[in-house]
Amino acid sequence: MGVVVPFEGGQDKPGASIDTLVRLVTADMALVNEAILEKAQSHVELIPELAGHLINSGGKRIRPMLTLAAARMCGYAGPHHIRLATAVEFMHTATLLHDDVVDESDLRRGKQAARVIWGNQASVLVGDYLLGQAFKMMVDTGSLESLRILANAAAVIAEGEVLQLSVSQDTSTTEDSYLKVVGAKTAALFSAAAEVGAVVANRPKTEQAALESYGRNLGIAFQLVDDALDYSGKQALLGKGVGDDFRERKITLPVVLSFRRGNADERLFWKRTLEEGKQEDGDLAHAQKLIERHRAIEDTIDRATHYGDIARDALAIFPDGAWKAALSEAVDFCISRAY
Amino acid sequence: MGVVVPFEGGQDKPGASIDTLVRLVTADMALVNEAILEKAQSHVELIPELAGHLINSGGKRIRPMLTLAAARMCGYAGPHHIRLATAVEFMHTATLLHDDVVDESDLRRGKQAARVIWGNQASVLVGDYLLGQAFKMMVDTGSLESLRILANAAAVIAEGEVLQLSVSQDTSTTEDSYLKVVGAKTAALFSAAAEVGAVVANRPKTEQAALESYGRNLGIAFQLVDDALDYSGKQALLGKGVGDDFRERKITLPVVLSFRRGNADERLFWKRTLEEGKQEDGDLAHAQKLIERHRAIEDTIDRATHYGDIARDALAIFPDGAWKAALSEAVDFCISRAY
Repeated sequence: MGVVVPFEGGQDKPGASIDTLVRLVTADMALVNEAILEKAQSHVELIPELAGHLINSGGKRIRPMLTLAAARMCGYAGPHHIRLATAVEFMHTATLLHDDVVDESDLRRGKQAARVIWGNQASVLVGDYLLGQAFKMMVDTGSLESLRILANAAAVIAEGEVLQLSVSQDTSTTEDSYLKVVGAKTAALFSAAAEVGAVVANRPKTEQAALESYGRNLGIAFQLVDDALDYSGKQALLGKGVGDDFRERKITLPVVLSFRRGNADERLFWKRTLEEGKQEDGDLAHAQKLIERHRAIEDTIDRATHYGDIARDALAIFPDGAWKAALSEAVDFCISRAY
Repeated sequence: MGVVVPFEGGQDKPGASIDTLVRLVTADMALVNEAILEKAQSHVELIPELAGHLINSGGKRIRPMLTLAAARMCGYAGPHHIRLATAVEFMHTATLLHDDVVDESDLRRGKQAARVIWGNQASVLVGDYLLGQAFKMMVDTGSLESLRILANAAAVIAEGEVLQLSVSQDTSTTEDSYLKVVGAKTAALFSAAAEVGAVVANRPKTEQAALESYGRNLGIAFQLVDDALDYSGKQALLGKGVGDDFRERKITLPVVLSFRRGNADERLFWKRTLEEGKQEDGDLAHAQKLIERHRAIEDTIDRATHYGDIARDALAIFPDGAWKAALSEAVDFCISRAY
């Protein structure tokens, strides 16, 4: 068990690699992987079976890496960052399990979604179990402040997903509204993951805030690049189907931009396919053509670059060193995935 | 908002009333109800709307009452028991929302289940939101020990529900296996709710353990009486349909006892209706007849009485007084609901 797919992007843009970060956290991440396997155990066999399916399906574990690297950059030398990183990954896994039920997805990370194999019921409940285990691990760190930050993230993530339910299938969603969704459903956990690294190391508020900002902006950049990839050919390489968002009728930034920049006919197309959900053969190709016509992929990546820049600048207050360089490079890597 | 259905049972058995407990916690419960409304708020309108549907649907709020009464019996005079009681109720509400999705229930407390009105998606996510809010409130109490107890309960409850998924539709489930499910899915939150009352009051381990035992055994008794009621005529008075468990093919104690005591023909009947799920008109009536033939209702209530006795004895170490008397009476009430 415990297969983790190594990152391999970044070749296109010099210096944009996640390898340094991965190498720096290798020893810590081995402990996190052990803790993941241990804490996903239960005498109820279905739980490790279902949790293991997702845990071993090649997630990148970027969120726990953020916790580990942030804690290390802050000079932390104790054992609690392992627990927090594991808790962060469990929160993420629980969210994925619940998301698949909510989105009625059939695929997750290129494999059948757990809900398809074991049913929605087990996916909901195993998600709840992992969340309970996550909070137990946080308690074991004795850090009430970390608990506060991560409990808040849990509430904000769920809130963001509910918000997405309401705005989804509304093609006239503004970029601002969409960013609120991204801020909640993706950036909240990235920011909490990074922030608790400073908290566990007992660093001052300014460093907590810097890492919170780093994580949040990196999370936004990460999600926007994901949105762009979903309409681009490169997506197939990442183990996700191209056009998943289109088929699931998600309004993402490439759509928001294309809709706003499109003419009346084009808007009717988006309304039919995404609001009314009437999709025919060839619609995805047409959507991609419209997105290309309006440079919506390039501009989505431009927006991502903007947030990536903020993330990088947020790190400025930390002394130069290997950890800071690796976290900064992670931002470049995140953007360069798009190319 | 904030309708709470008053308890009205207990007339059949002298002294078996929950009124004393309800009266004693009135002032505290008003604060809990305020906190419930406040913490179920969100700028995402669907959240208070959906949460309010369930919160205002006449739950008995027995779990938060346990926290309040346990804390008071332990002499607690601070504000944190209100937060813990509210968190307990949110955990319970989140569980109900997820349960309805898992069980595909159409009714909850005599009203349409939230999932029928707003969909499974919103029910899963609002449950997650309430769970996040619950943990935030626990953090506000500053009590890591309460957090540990309630986080553990969250994991155990989910684990119990997954276990129920595996044993459900197996008519040869033993009484012991079934009790494991009950211990997790119902008794875990009852016990945690009572135990944190002693924790917040900073009482010694013996008193924590006593309240944990009280809550756990009361929870088992409560669930078994519920199981009995589901096959008895009195059920309709409680706002739940008679035979819900039968239609949802749940193996509860009356079924476990009837199956074991039945002949080959009767076992085929239980297998057809509950394992294979082939139910016809008249099957519920026939199930009730078999249950009556084997005295399975009476014996389920006898078993409940056994656990109720343990709960009452667990309270013995506390000095006599109004709170202890009220908690003890709550046990009698819980059993007398069956009559």
